[in-house]
Amino acid sequence: MKKRNVWMAMLMMPLMALATEVSSPNGNVKLKFYLDEDGRPTYELTYKERTVVLPSHLGLELAKDKHASMGMEETDLMEGFRIVDEQATEQDETWQPVWGESRDIRNHYTEYAATLSRQWRSAPPKAKPGMQLQPRQHDRRIVVRFRVYDEGIGLRYEFPQQPDLNYFLIQEERTEFAMAGDHTAWWLPGDYDTQEQETQQTKLSEIRSRMKEAVNWGNSSVAVFSETGVQTSLQMKTDDGLYINIHEAACMDYATMHLELVDAQTTALTTKLMGSSNAYTPAPKPSPYPLPRPFTFVSHLTPDATGLKGCMQTPCQTPWRTVMVSDDARDMLSSNLILNLNEPCALDDVSWIHPTKYCGVWWEMIVGKSSWHYTDDFPSIYLDNIDWQKVKPNGRHAANNEKVKRYIDFAAKNGLDEVLVEGWNIGWEDWACMWKADVFDFVTPYPDFDIKYLNDYAHSRGVKLMMHHETSSSVTNYERHLEKAYQLMNDYGYDAVKSGYVGDIIPRGDYHYSQSMNNHYLYVLQEAAKHHIMVNAHEATRPTGLCRTWPNLVGNESARGTEYEAFYGSKPSHTVTLPFTRFQGGPMDYTPGVLETRLENWSENKHIVHTTVVGQLALYVVMCSPLQMAADLPQNYEKFDDAFQFIRDVALDWDDSRYIDAEPGEYITVARKAKGTDNWFIGGKCNEKGHKVDVKLDFLDKGRKYEAIIYADAKDANYETNPAAYTITKKTVKQGDVLKMTEAPGGGFAISIKPL
Amino acid sequence: MKKRNVWMAMLMMPLMALATEVSSPNGNVKLKFYLDEDGRPTYELTYKERTVVLPSHLGLELAKDKHASMGMEETDLMEGFRIVDEQATEQDETWQPVWGESRDIRNHYTEYAATLSRQWRSAPPKAKPGMQLQPRQHDRRIVVRFRVYDEGIGLRYEFPQQPDLNYFLIQEERTEFAMAGDHTAWWLPGDYDTQEQETQQTKLSEIRSRMKEAVNWGNSSVAVFSETGVQTSLQMKTDDGLYINIHEAACMDYATMHLELVDAQTTALTTKLMGSSNAYTPAPKPSPYPLPRPFTFVSHLTPDATGLKGCMQTPCQTPWRTVMVSDDARDMLSSNLILNLNEPCALDDVSWIHPTKYCGVWWEMIVGKSSWHYTDDFPSIYLDNIDWQKVKPNGRHAANNEKVKRYIDFAAKNGLDEVLVEGWNIGWEDWACMWKADVFDFVTPYPDFDIKYLNDYAHSRGVKLMMHHETSSSVTNYERHLEKAYQLMNDYGYDAVKSGYVGDIIPRGDYHYSQSMNNHYLYVLQEAAKHHIMVNAHEATRPTGLCRTWPNLVGNESARGTEYEAFYGSKPSHTVTLPFTRFQGGPMDYTPGVLETRLENWSENKHIVHTTVVGQLALYVVMCSPLQMAADLPQNYEKFDDAFQFIRDVALDWDDSRYIDAEPGEYITVARKAKGTDNWFIGGKCNEKGHKVDVKLDFLDKGRKYEAIIYADAKDANYETNPAAYTITKKTVKQGDVLKMTEAPGGGFAISIKPL
Repeated sequence: MKKRNVWMAMLMMPLMALATEVSSPNGNVKLKFYLDEDGRPTYELTYKERTVVLPSHLGLELAKDKHASMGMEETDLMEGFRIVDEQATEQDETWQPVWGESRDIRNHYTEYAATLSRQWRSAPPKAKPGMQLQPRQHDRRIVVRFRVYDEGIGLRYEFPQQPDLNYFLIQEERTEFAMAGDHTAWWLPGDYDTQEQETQQTKLSEIRSRMKEAVNWGNSSVAVFSETGVQTSLQMKTDDGLYINIHEAACMDYATMHLELVDAQTTALTTKLMGSSNAYTPAPKPSPYPLPRPFTFVSHLTPDATGLKGCMQTPCQTPWRTVMVSDDARDMLSSNLILNLNEPCALDDVSWIHPTKYCGVWWEMIVGKSSWHYTDDFPSIYLDNIDWQKVKPNGRHAANNEKVKRYIDFAAKNGLDEVLVEGWNIGWEDWACMWKADVFDFVTPYPDFDIKYLNDYAHSRGVKLMMHHETSSSVTNYERHLEKAYQLMNDYGYDAVKSGYVGDIIPRGDYHYSQSMNNHYLYVLQEAAKHHIMVNAHEATRPTGLCRTWPNLVGNESARGTEYEAFYGSKPSHTVTLPFTRFQGGPMDYTPGVLETRLENWSENKHIVHTTVVGQLALYVVMCSPLQMAADLPQNYEKFDDAFQFIRDVALDWDDSRYIDAEPGEYITVARKAKGTDNWFIGGKCNEKGHKVDVKLDFLDKGRKYEAIIYADAKDANYETNPAAYTITKKTVKQGDVLKMTEAPGGGFAISIKPL
Repeated sequence: MKKRNVWMAMLMMPLMALATEVSSPNGNVKLKFYLDEDGRPTYELTYKERTVVLPSHLGLELAKDKHASMGMEETDLMEGFRIVDEQATEQDETWQPVWGESRDIRNHYTEYAATLSRQWRSAPPKAKPGMQLQPRQHDRRIVVRFRVYDEGIGLRYEFPQQPDLNYFLIQEERTEFAMAGDHTAWWLPGDYDTQEQETQQTKLSEIRSRMKEAVNWGNSSVAVFSETGVQTSLQMKTDDGLYINIHEAACMDYATMHLELVDAQTTALTTKLMGSSNAYTPAPKPSPYPLPRPFTFVSHLTPDATGLKGCMQTPCQTPWRTVMVSDDARDMLSSNLILNLNEPCALDDVSWIHPTKYCGVWWEMIVGKSSWHYTDDFPSIYLDNIDWQKVKPNGRHAANNEKVKRYIDFAAKNGLDEVLVEGWNIGWEDWACMWKADVFDFVTPYPDFDIKYLNDYAHSRGVKLMMHHETSSSVTNYERHLEKAYQLMNDYGYDAVKSGYVGDIIPRGDYHYSQSMNNHYLYVLQEAAKHHIMVNAHEATRPTGLCRTWPNLVGNESARGTEYEAFYGSKPSHTVTLPFTRFQGGPMDYTPGVLETRLENWSENKHIVHTTVVGQLALYVVMCSPLQMAADLPQNYEKFDDAFQFIRDVALDWDDSRYIDAEPGEYITVARKAKGTDNWFIGGKCNEKGHKVDVKLDFLDKGRKYEAIIYADAKDANYETNPAAYTITKKTVKQGDVLKMTEAPGGGFAISIKPL
């Protein structure tokens, strides 16, 4: 790492009203930091001299607690500060991720850290028998640290260990992001438990009026907290063409952050929007510092069961709060700001982590044709009280020996690495939404799933089975069984697990995005690493780039995946929105590859998948992930075997990625070079309006000939009326050639290029 | 087991207004059960024709929950019932506990079970898109089961598996106990987290006015919920000399029950009495069925973090609610009603469970002379970030090699089985009341505690070390480390653990007595059994006789133990109250044996222990427990070596127990025959008023001569002014002899008798 002091100030006197300005390495992004007249930390942000963030306050409200106070009154960390130290340095390093969009990642930024001191004299002691509290001078210090990149900033609070701050409880973090105008935003309703909603595209001023519809859309909201609460990553676009994205990085031992647009109307939705949930929903408070900034977001952390937002021990820090900005939408996709703000890899040995292409016994249950559970005979079950050999099978249980063998054969034949099998283990009869604690044991197969035989068979064919751990969000139960569950995986040769957190968290009152649950997901990941197990956690927390530090986190869901096509549908714009939002935090197991997009062609399900066939192929490139499913059924792939060739071929790990064009919710075109090869894969995807793009092959080696296989929508293709109309053409290409691609409504294209 | 049908009725028609009467085997206790005019289950109880329980309703309020309703409206299980089946049988069996007060326990009762049906028609379906709810006839059945003993009853609710009742949430259990008069009661303030308060003795009508003082006493209340809420076991005495005790048995997968005296003034105390706790405190509701019964207790369950009381899956049942009654106070102590209502032993092999007499590195920390923690250098610590070899010791750390060796030598010399060592493991620097999650790892010793050497040394001297697991109530953390912690015990030869649950529960919002925490304690116990480990859990839930089913639960605290003598003091009446209340649920690790009752004689602590020296000896017999500590320091026992002989001699497990006289809060005299021997030990203990008792040795073998060693208070002995005045005399005794014993204020006596 190159480290250079670019600026240094050590002032023992308060710096009130004096602003420090910090520039990114190329000068495009400029940060201003100062204390206002009340000693409130305040920052502003510009990009090429255009305002990105208006003056915005930083601070935390602390909770008063019988424990934390320890004989000393609590004070918020909001105002009354003075600056006692400032440090600035430029950092420039390049690192190599275990997997990802490129072989090398440059981490180049200007760092600025201000040490703030808040001094106060404790109140005169009240006469309490046996207590002799003397008034005392207190001094609490926090550090506000900024990293200023050419495409945005990260900022966080740091809390050094000190006599006056060892433990504290967070009532709310009050980090403001005051937007300079009524931007267009791509947002999800703020929710403590899920982000599986459809994205809303509105002006900031329309969030409130859209919220009710947004919450009802597809029926996915669980724990909405405000009529103006939204999730991150929040992608915005200004009227004059700036792209702004707010998210967070490295969320560890801290609650997930939401954003609340604070205005005069801000009130609690509480249970009205939350349905009949018994969970405690605290009313959000308006910003204690209203200012004439009508589009100001304030951080809103996910609470614990008691309504508190965090429980801290110094030395510690918050996650990074990130603001990405550019006048080129492609920079929103190519930026590594979130990964760069995460800690380096924590694992010494990563040889066991590998890109994984898989199929699985899954889609047919999602569509409703078969079942996870084995028997219909019991209205509810206790795991230990049933002789599974004697119960009557329902005849629809998918995870049976015969079917799993067919999937293994299919994977072996088509070069897929693994076969996921859901519903292999006892407990699915009454697993969901019953507040049932002891719902699964994660080690006992149903009688028609011969775990030893099937793993042996898979291995004999060069394939692995992928484990499935649905926790039903009964977290206490999962942790009790975790070690034995991982041991079973080691015993039979599984090296990856898809886990699930469907339903409300047990312990009751907790939320999917709370500090304690974020700790749980990390605990599970760390324990998995000890067993050399890769994790793909569904319905878990919102990713913030922790996969840099723990690269065995090869996937997450944490968004509306392909499964919703079988439930309510997703708009064609969905897949060209997610890379701007959800994928900022890390790869998603979106489960693409449904080539039979009309489900009624093989099931009772009347829904369609809202892309063309080729659009499905494009997703493998547009949605970067080291873990990709071929989600459809083997018999459906047989129908589209020529198109399936792209799924067989496509790589999952890359030396380089070039974004060709992009616009949130509209289209994304990207070319990626497969790791350790000279092969390129290009994907283009668009929304319901279709798209045309000229793909200039300027990234190919000069003087070299390549064969391109081009999977394109046919002229009359349309995701609704004619999804399966596509052409596959081969041609020889070279550097500088231009491929003129036309994407159908809801369509796209996919190209594989190999040197001849 | 002898099983006889004594009565049988199968009536398919409602039995409204017809009462069924069930008599105990000897006819003293009579139960009446019927449905009132609203179909509410109602019971009454008499003892020798005197009213014990006035007409009292049974029922449960269910919570409405988005999950449990599953498309069907919820209905409470309170009223509108009809009786569809009745069964009555007499049962008589004798069983042998693994340890306890007697070799054989007779379980003799009349059982009556009424199956109640509640039918309703679901509301007409509302027009919801996509949902076609038809009105439907529903039928929910519950069983109310009574066991009628000669000294009281148990009753419980059972919920068979059925189409209309698979999962449900309990808003509140509404079991009433309507007392027939303004009885004297020995009570503790109802509290979701602790029962370490001093017992209050008042009339029922005085509970409300005494509550504030009761809560403030000794500063032990944590989560008080009502001005008339009290804990069980609740001992009462009527003006005409009936003794009544309300408690519960076999509390598993259910919240601990409190009692609330419901009157017109019933309101919530909420945070006023609870201090600044952040915990959610639901307001208690008055009984939905007020009746002119001024002394009616209603059950009040401990809530979870969301305020709900229970989460149930059929088939299941509540714990037994018990009412013990007699006109002889001794029956309150000799009754095995609670144990009899628990399930038989669940362990096949109990050979590894043994009575244990122990000393330990503990009392000197309680008194304040030495410390659990190793260093004073850090205001807070992260376990993994400290090089313990390099930190500066504080010089007061008690659990060091040298001291532990002295305790081992002391135990070996005096025939004690084990040596408890608290403060042996890292983390004590900031362990309590910080909401700190990762507080202990339970496996890493401080640098001055050589775990291998000390265990080897102890074993070479025929002694075992006793493990200590303070969890700091960070339950998630404890469960994560449990298996490795138990494995460490197996590796080094520990076979018993004292565990602790000081402070508020993590996950935050949960309580020590909740359903989930009761599940935790049982989980820990079951995992311990797999490792052949005996458990003595402090600050855990209120015991309800589970030690019958899990006899490796050799002790609990769950009351105000000897430690409070070093904090605030306990009244002399305390130790003659606990056997009537706390000990109903199982043995207590009271940690008696503090012979140097004036702490200032060896420390800075100015408190005294509120008994005479001989009073301490008596506790080993009066407080029956298979686990008994000799709590004082070796150097103090050297000062009282002649009295200490009784502690060396006394047995911990018994073939027989004979209560000679007893009165709650006044005095208890009991003779016990040591298991497998002809030795008897007699203990007498009294309150501050002193006591005289004639001990007639009618239980000795006829024609046999015995040597009795009598430890008695000297004439001028007094717990405050002259605690160490005692006499030790030997005499030969035989069957029928009478020993006239005089107990000093706060004193007692102890006698060991062996055949010559």
